[in-house]
Amino acid sequence: MELISDNRSFGGRQRVYRHASQALSCEMTFGLYLPPQAEAGPVPVLWYLAGLTCTHENGMTKAGLQQHAARHGLALVFPDTSPRGEGVADDEAFDLGQGAGFYLNAAQDPWAPHFRMQDYVLDELPRLLAEEGLPLSGKHGIMGHSMGGHGALTLALKNPEAYASVSALAPIVTPTTSDWGRKQFAAYLGEDEAVWAEHDACQLLESRGWTGDILIDQGTEDQFLELLQPEAMADTLARTRTPGVLRMQEGYDHSYFFVASFAGDHVAWHAERLTR
Amino acid sequence: MELISDNRSFGGRQRVYRHASQALSCEMTFGLYLPPQAEAGPVPVLWYLAGLTCTHENGMTKAGLQQHAARHGLALVFPDTSPRGEGVADDEAFDLGQGAGFYLNAAQDPWAPHFRMQDYVLDELPRLLAEEGLPLSGKHGIMGHSMGGHGALTLALKNPEAYASVSALAPIVTPTTSDWGRKQFAAYLGEDEAVWAEHDACQLLESRGWTGDILIDQGTEDQFLELLQPEAMADTLARTRTPGVLRMQEGYDHSYFFVASFAGDHVAWHAERLTR
Repeated sequence: MELISDNRSFGGRQRVYRHASQALSCEMTFGLYLPPQAEAGPVPVLWYLAGLTCTHENGMTKAGLQQHAARHGLALVFPDTSPRGEGVADDEAFDLGQGAGFYLNAAQDPWAPHFRMQDYVLDELPRLLAEEGLPLSGKHGIMGHSMGGHGALTLALKNPEAYASVSALAPIVTPTTSDWGRKQFAAYLGEDEAVWAEHDACQLLESRGWTGDILIDQGTEDQFLELLQPEAMADTLARTRTPGVLRMQEGYDHSYFFVASFAGDHVAWHAERLTR
Repeated sequence: MELISDNRSFGGRQRVYRHASQALSCEMTFGLYLPPQAEAGPVPVLWYLAGLTCTHENGMTKAGLQQHAARHGLALVFPDTSPRGEGVADDEAFDLGQGAGFYLNAAQDPWAPHFRMQDYVLDELPRLLAEEGLPLSGKHGIMGHSMGGHGALTLALKNPEAYASVSALAPIVTPTTSDWGRKQFAAYLGEDEAVWAEHDACQLLESRGWTGDILIDQGTEDQFLELLQPEAMADTLARTRTPGVLRMQEGYDHSYFFVASFAGDHVAWHAERLTR
């Protein structure tokens, strides 16, 4: 891993690394925040998955997460949202291809060779971080915004052994019934909708349940409410008797102003569960 | 004034306006944060002046100021750093022309017709905000980063009746002896260095003093220390017996990670002085 930048932030270090990814067969860039507590020993890790069109940079520069991570003693990882580069398949649409990996492993051409974000986030990047000898404990939580909220929820629900806590901001919760999902799943996974169910947070919660509780925030003035369908998750959470809370936040939209406004609550939520 | 965007942020409103500026003879864009307290009545205003290459957007999206303004009940204004547009003079260098207004009134061609940032920030924009009937009190503080720190310090020192509080992060404090200053002052103001003294924070503090106290933060790992010369301000503050504090912050650089790390201290400092 090559260290690209290293900025002091709230007494800790905000770093950016570049590395060759085997899972994605391309060069990848990610952000890592180490809180001041990491100087004394290993700290738990909170993953922040970003939404459509984002890179590793958006959450790192606009969400204001570092101050809370510094207070609670959590590291933060900011992965990119897809494989990148000239040899990597892409699409003209902003919501397919580069910048729109949906945190799954694609099974169809032209996407299959590179679009394996599930392997990257779940397996390869944690392994690389561990091999690097960074002061990170084995305890991980995961959160995300929009498409990244979909990623956080689905990765956690499918891998409860990997994540001790999960939360989401304005997540895509039922991509199998949304235009943010159906197009991408057809492209990445093929036409068999039975396969899609493994990448739909509401269906996963229904079929597998969740070992802990879940925090979700959703703005009432989000311009993408029709695509996000928070009512589907509200219904599923209640029907499956899953502990947790879905908060409809009055007047908030889909922007990073919304994310930043509730970043502190989410980091505190994860800290409570990761430092138990 | 045309409202371009309006996002809920920490219970308040982060707005962006566009308007025709008479002072600058061009269209200008700025950000305005109204804290939740503004719904109950007028609140004091804290101006945030940004540095070289920035627009109104950098401080608004990366500094994390809103949460602190919401806690303390201050509005925030984020002006652009220069006039903009096709008819406006510019230079290939990043540190002259558009994005590099230095918060002064240019006296020389080709800059004189548009580059009147002092008039804009000190007179026109406060007047427009007042005319708009926004819930802003007449009490103003001013802060800034880098070139914006220069702007905050020089505008306050020259206009103590306009600003009840002033602070700066990694400011240019003695542009008359720095490559961030001499080139620009020669271009904007002409070769008579006696005129330049009116735009040099150290010289102004020497010649006029300051009615209150001053807060300055400076990172010890700032990549531009040779241009910023914090030792000149340290010397001047001490020699003029000016109350206040210049903090050399260990390990911090010039980035917005530095700005965000101390944004809370600066907003609290201003709030204490603006709500007395």
